[in-house]
Amino acid sequence: MNELTDKTVGFIGLGLMGRPMCRNLMKAGLTPVVYNRSPQPRQELAREGAVAADSPAEVAEQADIIVIMVADTPAVEHVLTGPDGVLHSLRSATLLIDMGTTAVPATRRLAALVEEKGALYVDAPVSGGTIGAEAGTLTIMAGGSEQAFALARPVLSLLGERITHVGATGAGQVAKAANQVIVGLNIGAVAEALALAKAAGVDPARVRAALRGGFADSRILEVHGQRMLDNNFAPGGKCTTQRKDMHQALELAAELGLEMPATALSRDLYDRLIDDGDGDLDHAALFRLYTKS
Amino acid sequence: MNELTDKTVGFIGLGLMGRPMCRNLMKAGLTPVVYNRSPQPRQELAREGAVAADSPAEVAEQADIIVIMVADTPAVEHVLTGPDGVLHSLRSATLLIDMGTTAVPATRRLAALVEEKGALYVDAPVSGGTIGAEAGTLTIMAGGSEQAFALARPVLSLLGERITHVGATGAGQVAKAANQVIVGLNIGAVAEALALAKAAGVDPARVRAALRGGFADSRILEVHGQRMLDNNFAPGGKCTTQRKDMHQALELAAELGLEMPATALSRDLYDRLIDDGDGDLDHAALFRLYTKS
Repeated sequence: MNELTDKTVGFIGLGLMGRPMCRNLMKAGLTPVVYNRSPQPRQELAREGAVAADSPAEVAEQADIIVIMVADTPAVEHVLTGPDGVLHSLRSATLLIDMGTTAVPATRRLAALVEEKGALYVDAPVSGGTIGAEAGTLTIMAGGSEQAFALARPVLSLLGERITHVGATGAGQVAKAANQVIVGLNIGAVAEALALAKAAGVDPARVRAALRGGFADSRILEVHGQRMLDNNFAPGGKCTTQRKDMHQALELAAELGLEMPATALSRDLYDRLIDDGDGDLDHAALFRLYTKS
Repeated sequence: MNELTDKTVGFIGLGLMGRPMCRNLMKAGLTPVVYNRSPQPRQELAREGAVAADSPAEVAEQADIIVIMVADTPAVEHVLTGPDGVLHSLRSATLLIDMGTTAVPATRRLAALVEEKGALYVDAPVSGGTIGAEAGTLTIMAGGSEQAFALARPVLSLLGERITHVGATGAGQVAKAANQVIVGLNIGAVAEALALAKAAGVDPARVRAALRGGFADSRILEVHGQRMLDNNFAPGGKCTTQRKDMHQALELAAELGLEMPATALSRDLYDRLIDDGDGDLDHAALFRLYTKS
């Protein structure tokens, strides 16, 4: 905490993830300067003791460290380079931490713009959903220089538990893309396996139990497998988010000349599910593609 | 052990899995009556104290409980219904335990033939490979009546650690099919994720480390992910076996009118790998499809 007592922390993006994360900073004794596109969450956090700002630029005027937690790549770009964006008033030595799931090329481009102003950039996307955000137990995958990561660590420690410095700028986003590829494909694996059991007249709950502890075991079998058995698809991580993240991973792969046929198929299955109107359900709802008749 | 002292146990199929499993029965004080199509392993086990038989029928004449551990569905059918097969001399009340990975419809058909003779049938396929077979730590998924499973359990306990009675005849094989579907698809997931990291210039070892403990974590990320990093594809479970098991799962699904597109794609990727001459490598070698240039 000592590293942060003389620092002002800004927080941009007060959605389902950002709000509880910002509150964890406040619980640790910080008084964040907050901004959100729609005013209601700003006012809510201000009533709880935060300082509301009227634009990203105004956050940048006051903050030494700025956490950004917005919905997608265009939103991050807007927060940084938009008319009232952070870059307009960014001071040298300010640290920007992008904790959303942003495309790797955009991350590298935005980091370069930030570094041109003498400021620092860390990409630090998270896994663990709103539950992890509330509990402060997010898994955090960080990319950036050693210097920038060292500066970011005290803030990240207030937000998550497993914090890995994966590599240079963009490496955190690459790890998050890898995470989402595995999560999506493993949900598909568990869905096909449990649907097969069900179709064969065998209790999928007992199949899942038989598989725990063996090579088929995973956090997805544990958590999302149980969701499938319970037909409980209240999110959690939404299908639309899962689809967006896999699509972003596929765009990166295409740029690199890498084919990912399994990820492409899974993205297409999520497309079907979203077309069926299930986009706002938890990503475990992929199971429904196999069990709806 | 008391349940087994007055029983003769037979063991048919002394391959890479069967041999160490049979030895675990001998370590527990049993004197199994053994058969294998090629004579060498029979003689080897006989020198160690087992009783060699000249045919499956001869095993059936002597044994109260017969474990079958052969390569595939046609081999099990041959052991039971062939010219010198078990069914020729099967006594009533004998228990047959098929521990190989056998197709579900064949399992149900063979069990019916066995039960017509007043004998009992348990399908009890395993996961854990030769290492698990040697250590006696196999995961065992069993199908059959309560009575048959109760009779099988003392023998199964000498061979494995996690023993689940999944349901009626065939339920063990359904669980094994589910297991193989998840294992194959999750290997593909980890392969695409780590290949993406590598292509993006990020150390896949650090990506894997960042993902451990989160939703992307699994036994496959732990074991097969490490194999991919080490380029160590000495089996383990072979690509040809993985391909066979997924194909068998797809045949079952087709009979049941269930589409499993992700499993079908993975089967096709394993076909490509086998065509490339990598069939005898560990199933984690799927990674090579993404990294060979």
